Amino acid sequence: MTTSDDEAAQWWATSITRIAPGEIDHRGVPVEELIGRTGFVEMIWFMVVGGTPTPSQTRLLEAALVAATDHGPQAPSIAIARMTVTCGVGLNGAVASGVNALGDVHGGAGEQCVVMLDDAIARVADGESWDDAAVAIVDEHRRRSAYVPGFGHRFHPRDPRRDPLLGLVSEAVASGDVPGRHLEAALAFERALDRPGRRPVPMNIDGATAVIYGELGLPAPLARGLFLLSRSVGILAHAWEERQSGVRNKGPLPRTVLPAYRPGPEAG
Amino acid sequence: MTTSDDEAAQWWATSITRIAPGEIDHRGVPVEELIGRTGFVEMIWFMVVGGTPTPSQTRLLEAALVAATDHGPQAPSIAIARMTVTCGVGLNGAVASGVNALGDVHGGAGEQCVVMLDDAIARVADGESWDDAAVAIVDEHRRRSAYVPGFGHRFHPRDPRRDPLLGLVSEAVASGDVPGRHLEAALAFERALDRPGRRPVPMNIDGATAVIYGELGLPAPLARGLFLLSRSVGILAHAWEERQSGVRNKGPLPRTVLPAYRPGPEAG
Amino acid sequence: MTTSDDEAAQWWATSITRIAPGEIDHRGVPVEELIGRTGFVEMIWFMVVGGTPTPSQTRLLEAALVAATDHGPQAPSIAIARMTVTCGVGLNGAVASGVNALGDVHGGAGEQCVVMLDDAIARVADGESWDDAAVAIVDEHRRRSAYVPGFGHRFHPRDPRRDPLLGLVSEAVASGDVPGRHLEAALAFERALDRPGRRPVPMNIDGATAVIYGELGLPAPLARGLFLLSRSVGILAHAWEERQSGVRNKGPLPRTVLPAYRPGPEAG
Amino acid sequence: MTTSDDEAAQWWATSITRIAPGEIDHRGVPVEELIGRTGFVEMIWFMVVGGTPTPSQTRLLEAALVAATDHGPQAPSIAIARMTVTCGVGLNGAVASGVNALGDVHGGAGEQCVVMLDDAIARVADGESWDDAAVAIVDEHRRRSAYVPGFGHRFHPRDPRRDPLLGLVSEAVASGDVPGRHLEAALAFERALDRPGRRPVPMNIDGATAVIYGELGLPAPLARGLFLLSRSVGILAHAWEERQSGVRNKGPLPRTVLPAYRPGPEAG
Repeated sequence: MTTSDDEAAQWWATSITRIAPGEIDHRGVPVEELIGRTGFVEMIWFMVVGGTPTPSQTRLLEAALVAATDHGPQAPSIAIARMTVTCGVGLNGAVASGVNALGDVHGGAGEQCVVMLDDAIARVADGESWDDAAVAIVDEHRRRSAYVPGFGHRFHPRDPRRDPLLGLVSEAVASGDVPGRHLEAALAFERALDRPGRRPVPMNIDGATAVIYGELGLPAPLARGLFLLSRSVGILAHAWEERQSGVRNKGPLPRTVLPAYRPGPEAG
Repeated sequence: MTTSDDEAAQWWATSITRIAPGEIDHRGVPVEELIGRTGFVEMIWFMVVGGTPTPSQTRLLEAALVAATDHGPQAPSIAIARMTVTCGVGLNGAVASGVNALGDVHGGAGEQCVVMLDDAIARVADGESWDDAAVAIVDEHRRRSAYVPGFGHRFHPRDPRRDPLLGLVSEAVASGDVPGRHLEAALAFERALDRPGRRPVPMNIDGATAVIYGELGLPAPLARGLFLLSRSVGILAHAWEERQSGVRNKGPLPRTVLPAYRPGPEAG
Repeated sequence: MTTSDDEAAQWWATSITRIAPGEIDHRGVPVEELIGRTGFVEMIWFMVVGGTPTPSQTRLLEAALVAATDHGPQAPSIAIARMTVTCGVGLNGAVASGVNALGDVHGGAGEQCVVMLDDAIARVADGESWDDAAVAIVDEHRRRSAYVPGFGHRFHPRDPRRDPLLGLVSEAVASGDVPGRHLEAALAFERALDRPGRRPVPMNIDGATAVIYGELGLPAPLARGLFLLSRSVGILAHAWEERQSGVRNKGPLPRTVLPAYRPGPEAG
Repeated sequence: MTTSDDEAAQWWATSITRIAPGEIDHRGVPVEELIGRTGFVEMIWFMVVGGTPTPSQTRLLEAALVAATDHGPQAPSIAIARMTVTCGVGLNGAVASGVNALGDVHGGAGEQCVVMLDDAIARVADGESWDDAAVAIVDEHRRRSAYVPGFGHRFHPRDPRRDPLLGLVSEAVASGDVPGRHLEAALAFERALDRPGRRPVPMNIDGATAVIYGELGLPAPLARGLFLLSRSVGILAHAWEERQSGVRNKGPLPRTVLPAYRPGPEAG
């Protein structure tokens, strides 16, 4: 290999996978030692994060992945995948467009919530109380936006995924498997958001999984990254269901209803 | 609810997920009964296919998902995700464009191979021998294309993922957990492709996972669908690694090498 | 530059654009000679097809591009772009997912129609009459599918874009600017589809633009390619309008209507 | 139509397009009055912005669209489209993934530059001099990032698209067709960036087109939006060129060069 081949090879250097004829290693482990021995959830951790999770870590990650697969066709990502698959593209195209919609607003709350939890933990490490830290951070968020990421749900007064997820985290804290500080932070935010005379604002799926990702020590952007893998399951399930329906060019409304026309300032 | 609301509701009807305030059911099961009790691989089956897999089915699906996560940055899907994430979009955008590339040529061989295996099984059910069926089908493919989907690899003389995957299928056949006909069909194709004086053309990852998907009784398009979930793991891992590098606007070649200009018929 | 640099450079060789420090040439022409002198429609032709179109060719291509920009939010591509932009991604992500949906069923009819017109022209060159060729091809299509690409519209009894587009083609034929055979072929298809006692099936936008692309001598896949550029205008317009609305996570139905749940075979 | 139909219809209300059987209006104008009479660049303005541009505005927008179509395969968007089209997806999928990469870093500089120019204009309106405003804004940018959006180019000491674009703006200012303040602001930024002993940092394509979009009175996000339409031309041209090559599964490097493996902290 010449110097300049080497430069091209280095341009694409990676720690994740090495191939040679007849050989594939992932992070230094031959793939044939992984197949049949490593679970898919451990494999996700191994590939994305690196290293091998403990059984307790695997159990928490697995619960987070199971919990967030779907919320039905009102979610833009799901409707988009269902519509796309009726337009004559493969399942890959439909899943791609569904995943593409998981942006800052639709898929980003978990990532933003981990940042917020990390912030509270840092303040507490500096001597603040959990409740003071939570109130201060909520106030900052409220100044910029009506939303506190990870808390409250437009549709569910109490998100049914909150309790089982937090239950698993509590067990892992009790057995000393995870530190428990992201859980404490999140509960402090719930208290800070619970104001007399107002509807309570409990953790939603993004908040509860942010607690898990935080307890697992993962960087905030992976809260979105791992959510993508979870929601891809629901996106695929819906794309496949829709494809079997045989509908062509599915629009958002039944064919008997036309979008309204609202004359704009430019119309004559 | 009025008749026409109902029409709109029916337009988006689904068997996958039902929501009501405080409630989320997937295929009739409340999500809180799934979290912490159902493994992610079973959840994938439950959501995408419906029903609950046996432990042996889960084990095979898990192996297929673990085996196909990545083949490094020479794969277009991986390079695309790494390049996209350097352009100022979220991980969702990078994963989406990676998955989008898993089309008929890059991600479709498994699906095509299941069709081919099903075809052989149907011929054998009609009285042909495995070898006659395999030779006939290979001949038909060869007339249309240089490729027989699921067999042979440009880079690996023998794909290292073949043996451990087929080993797991053989065990499941031996214990009566799966019928074994897709395995028999695939081995017949290997014999049909092994011609004196030529390099052998053993099953590749697409062929070995097609055997699994076939033994699991899944329709051919889900061979691609489930591969999307597996490869998304590698795509995410690479996008995340690249994002941590801090490179901006990563092109395909190091910055010292410019694409060649090849004057076309239109040039002056 | 060494030999192997050269290999990497050749791997990405192109006839479209050459860059050097301070220089950008497109198909051999410095970009500064194009800016302010070449119209955007001519530039599209120059970049995508190569060569310079005649004024009459430019006029026809321009009409095709103007005609197909939008059909409103019932089109999946438009609804998808509007939903995506409310999820916290840039206009690039919204336009991408809209364009991604322009697959074989939603954006491919023009391409398929050019193939069909070319087929009729080839049969006529072999001695068949226009009407016999059209009837034979329609029969073949009808055996495989309920759709004849480019003809009929679910919504419009007569597509209002047909007449002005064909009028422009007729003028160009009359002045000798284009051969007129794709127009003749398409009119023969309309006659073949006009059966007593049935609703007529006139050309739709895909058929009328296929006539133009065919008369311009373009290969069939560019009928879809150029349509992408046209529809991108409508996709962008809708994504921008929706973004200004401030809606977050727009689903397909108003929030008061939930998708129906239809218990599947798997439900308990 | 009932009230709830109306609710669904209103959910998708738009000022852009109205359809009825046999009728399509764009912003109140029947499509048949646009075909053959309106140029494609005017149509882009009409659809995306609303209203009809003056000939001078059309000329500037046309120049911006012509100038930015392509910078060759080192641009991630172009390489991505070329790689995608070799994976067995339609041109729509290839163009989609190319456009998807035009994020904040790859396609967003024009948008950010318009914001910066608007900021300078506001300061001058408040009594600052052009040069003071430019120096102050550059200092702020430099504190956050090494990049000042719209100025300087990694590859071109002087971007060859700058002079012809600014020349057209100057002409339009001289003839009173546009106000000229965005041009003045941009020239002040060039002076602020020109420091003794350092390489000058002239406007690049994003800066020069930002001047145009600013002079046309367009909101900053449309600098990216309209750039998407321009670059889609190059993306389509490259995808089509690559598709004609017949390469399958094109990776970023020639097949003789493998990406380097760089053992990570996790490797054994």
